[in-house]
Amino acid sequence: MEDVQNHTPSVPMHIDRVGCRGMKLPMLVRDREKGIQQTIATIDVGVDLPSSFKGTHMSRFVEALREWNEDVSYASLKRLLVDVKRRLGAQRAWTRFSFPYFMTKAAPATCSSAQMSYDCRLTGELDANGKQNFLLEIWVPVMTVCPCSKAISREGAHSQRALVYMSVRMNAFIWLEDFIEIAERSGSSPVYTLLKREDEKYVTEHAFSEPVFVEDVVRNVAQQLAGHEHITWFSVEVESMESIHNHSAFARIEQDLETGGEQESERE
Amino acid sequence: MEDVQNHTPSVPMHIDRVGCRGMKLPMLVRDREKGIQQTIATIDVGVDLPSSFKGTHMSRFVEALREWNEDVSYASLKRLLVDVKRRLGAQRAWTRFSFPYFMTKAAPATCSSAQMSYDCRLTGELDANGKQNFLLEIWVPVMTVCPCSKAISREGAHSQRALVYMSVRMNAFIWLEDFIEIAERSGSSPVYTLLKREDEKYVTEHAFSEPVFVEDVVRNVAQQLAGHEHITWFSVEVESMESIHNHSAFARIEQDLETGGEQESERE
Amino acid sequence: MEDVQNHTPSVPMHIDRVGCRGMKLPMLVRDREKGIQQTIATIDVGVDLPSSFKGTHMSRFVEALREWNEDVSYASLKRLLVDVKRRLGAQRAWTRFSFPYFMTKAAPATCSSAQMSYDCRLTGELDANGKQNFLLEIWVPVMTVCPCSKAISREGAHSQRALVYMSVRMNAFIWLEDFIEIAERSGSSPVYTLLKREDEKYVTEHAFSEPVFVEDVVRNVAQQLAGHEHITWFSVEVESMESIHNHSAFARIEQDLETGGEQESERE
Amino acid sequence: MEDVQNHTPSVPMHIDRVGCRGMKLPMLVRDREKGIQQTIATIDVGVDLPSSFKGTHMSRFVEALREWNEDVSYASLKRLLVDVKRRLGAQRAWTRFSFPYFMTKAAPATCSSAQMSYDCRLTGELDANGKQNFLLEIWVPVMTVCPCSKAISREGAHSQRALVYMSVRMNAFIWLEDFIEIAERSGSSPVYTLLKREDEKYVTEHAFSEPVFVEDVVRNVAQQLAGHEHITWFSVEVESMESIHNHSAFARIEQDLETGGEQESERE
Repeated sequence: MEDVQNHTPSVPMHIDRVGCRGMKLPMLVRDREKGIQQTIATIDVGVDLPSSFKGTHMSRFVEALREWNEDVSYASLKRLLVDVKRRLGAQRAWTRFSFPYFMTKAAPATCSSAQMSYDCRLTGELDANGKQNFLLEIWVPVMTVCPCSKAISREGAHSQRALVYMSVRMNAFIWLEDFIEIAERSGSSPVYTLLKREDEKYVTEHAFSEPVFVEDVVRNVAQQLAGHEHITWFSVEVESMESIHNHSAFARIEQDLETGGEQESERE
Repeated sequence: MEDVQNHTPSVPMHIDRVGCRGMKLPMLVRDREKGIQQTIATIDVGVDLPSSFKGTHMSRFVEALREWNEDVSYASLKRLLVDVKRRLGAQRAWTRFSFPYFMTKAAPATCSSAQMSYDCRLTGELDANGKQNFLLEIWVPVMTVCPCSKAISREGAHSQRALVYMSVRMNAFIWLEDFIEIAERSGSSPVYTLLKREDEKYVTEHAFSEPVFVEDVVRNVAQQLAGHEHITWFSVEVESMESIHNHSAFARIEQDLETGGEQESERE
Repeated sequence: MEDVQNHTPSVPMHIDRVGCRGMKLPMLVRDREKGIQQTIATIDVGVDLPSSFKGTHMSRFVEALREWNEDVSYASLKRLLVDVKRRLGAQRAWTRFSFPYFMTKAAPATCSSAQMSYDCRLTGELDANGKQNFLLEIWVPVMTVCPCSKAISREGAHSQRALVYMSVRMNAFIWLEDFIEIAERSGSSPVYTLLKREDEKYVTEHAFSEPVFVEDVVRNVAQQLAGHEHITWFSVEVESMESIHNHSAFARIEQDLETGGEQESERE
Repeated sequence: MEDVQNHTPSVPMHIDRVGCRGMKLPMLVRDREKGIQQTIATIDVGVDLPSSFKGTHMSRFVEALREWNEDVSYASLKRLLVDVKRRLGAQRAWTRFSFPYFMTKAAPATCSSAQMSYDCRLTGELDANGKQNFLLEIWVPVMTVCPCSKAISREGAHSQRALVYMSVRMNAFIWLEDFIEIAERSGSSPVYTLLKREDEKYVTEHAFSEPVFVEDVVRNVAQQLAGHEHITWFSVEVESMESIHNHSAFARIEQDLETGGEQESERE
């Protein structure tokens, strides 16, 4: 049967990345408390393609994923990427796993516990020299109470849910829970799935004693990430779904800790 | 050229509705202040299809829309539906326009004004007897301050953005602005695009003097819709993006004002 | 501590449904092949609220879900609803679980197998008399080849992915897999996660030998649902992401099999 | 009234960008045929913030946008950014406008015309030295017919809608229409809003005479962008919503035409 993919393309240009996007699979990930937890990942996977080939072989990505069948970790993702490179005859391989991660949280006063989910994304790339590159992204909701509103008003202050987005590169393993905790202590209060009345009183009073702008939250998170021994680069963005507006406030800080100092934000 | 659509289908079953979904077009709608405003509508349009025809003629929906070329109103939508019925040789015709609607709002203290957009959806149907049926839907963001949090806490109260969804049937024209105003006076405060510091103080203090549950908001809106002389049926749903949780609270009330009394909610 | 929820509301109106929306939890569902499979559900849960109470007690919904802790089934959902009614002192209780469901599918020529996910939604309601009402919804992607394009063109025919949406009420248990199979034999071809070249040839040739309009697909599905001994009501909608347009074609049929005959589609 | 924003922050860190996100406004953009067209833009705007200030002044972004009130162009966006820098006392200013752009297209055989919309995004940044940087992004749907499926099958070939995403930096003005046309001649066929039967025949036959992989499309687009005298950098990504799968195929090429040669894709 003809292998059209191996034909010469009419435009002989190297393709940076070609592959499959949006496959869903059940997946196991490491859990600090329970050792392992099951989740569902949406997966993208791709390779580069030399200018001499018309097409890649898409079914091999699916086969590589099917055979792989490991818990998600840096080591196992590297094995997947090595296998993908080999199956596709490629120089570079790349993959991205997006999944919700569950953590059991105790309410602050009654200690009633319930599960909460956090969106995560793990991206891995293996270059032509076998050098690997990983990026971890995680989104953590928190509560913010506005310091300006509190200072100028006779009573109250507007509060809202804000989303802390962290994107990090590391030189050693760090638990997802560590990042969740960094974000949750950077707002006016963490948010919870289950709060009894005593907890709601605690959260309200605690949050009002710690009013923060979106600027404060992004700095609080950045300071902790910058001080972490195993983080080599990070970008933090906080988006606050303002309760007094129909739009959001946002703030972002990016730092390359290898080259040192604060980073000019990217051009775009 | 063969007209496959006119063939006999292998399964001779009447189709309730068949058509096109998701076409985008610039559109003019009536504006209480300016007479007319331009927006962009996402449009669905369909008809029924007798059991004797294999397919409908999709391009005729697009032609009907192109020729129609009117401002959006009940009268003009009826003309569109009459034309669609005729072009398609159908018994019934149906269409749905989804669009953002802009309104200029003045901040409560400084009166600084800015535009705010509200998502709207207008659905029209013309049945076999030429009887028309219209449904207007509109989504209005408001602010809510939690009465429980306020009552039990030494200081403060959590607040958040909530979305009021109204779905109404009417027997006479009502301005979109009227529905926006009904929703905006039913929460703890309206939300605004532009607020200077004096306005933020006003909104905070005003909102804290009017704490409401999602249940209060839905009742406040329902009471006003139930008392409106031109509304024959409505459904209201309020969703509050709780600042202390990562999930929402919601409440809904539906009433058929022609049959009278409160309505059992639909089965599903 | 004050229970503001028990206060008298300023607008004494019965609320049809009030509760929590958008909580995510790991969940087990019944699987025809493996007995059980793990997934992640997004959950809404609510009750009615009499006109004499200002608010419901939101944390009790979360507690009911936490204590429930069963596999998803009609029987277990009923137990959840009974418990929710009791905890909240309500007349009626309602819940909705949305989750992806995985099924292993073999490619048609090589029999290479891979998992595919299907979005499902199960809604249950328990009314004042303890009568329960369940609605199952499932979305199944298929491939369609256009019969008109095929008949009029010298070569080829446009094809695309289409999404079959089924909403059903039943009087006995039916496997999710049965609905998936009904939809997959109603298009030009099922779609697959893994196809080797022999499979792609098979799928292409098979699909081109079975060209169908969106109208044919909706009728093919409706005929099978109407003939199923345990289905009492259904609605089917097919949306085809036309490869020659940037909009979709859609068709829907709804039938109440208890009252008999074809159903007028709902007003809106 | 206290200006909390001017306080000293507890973490004295420079913030790369802080501002407002998700404001919607009616907007005028330049149109090659009609001179000008009205659309609706979703707007983000931000500035950097020195380590000595606790917060930025969010309302000034809204005021800048309100006063600006110009048609969207490179020159007018620069004026907006200069004004934002001045109002906020910032070193750098940044803005992003996302909007649908409409173009009237004639069907290939009957020349029946109808409007089609294309999603666009324009991002501008002004740095500390007043140097400006613009990025234009545009999404164009096309049709692809699979060359492999065509070569190996006795009859037919699967086709689908694919989305061409172009991101470009330029040193002179280029019409949006030029990019739309580049993308539309790079697939098997453009897609249309209105096609009569003669047109559907034409599109089908034309598309089947030009089968392309997602790899071919990305190369066809990249070749044209690379050869354009006013483009200094580009990234193209094509995503094909495979009609035989429930996932997509994608391919991307990025080139910096100032430094010359093909670009290693970014790390992540």
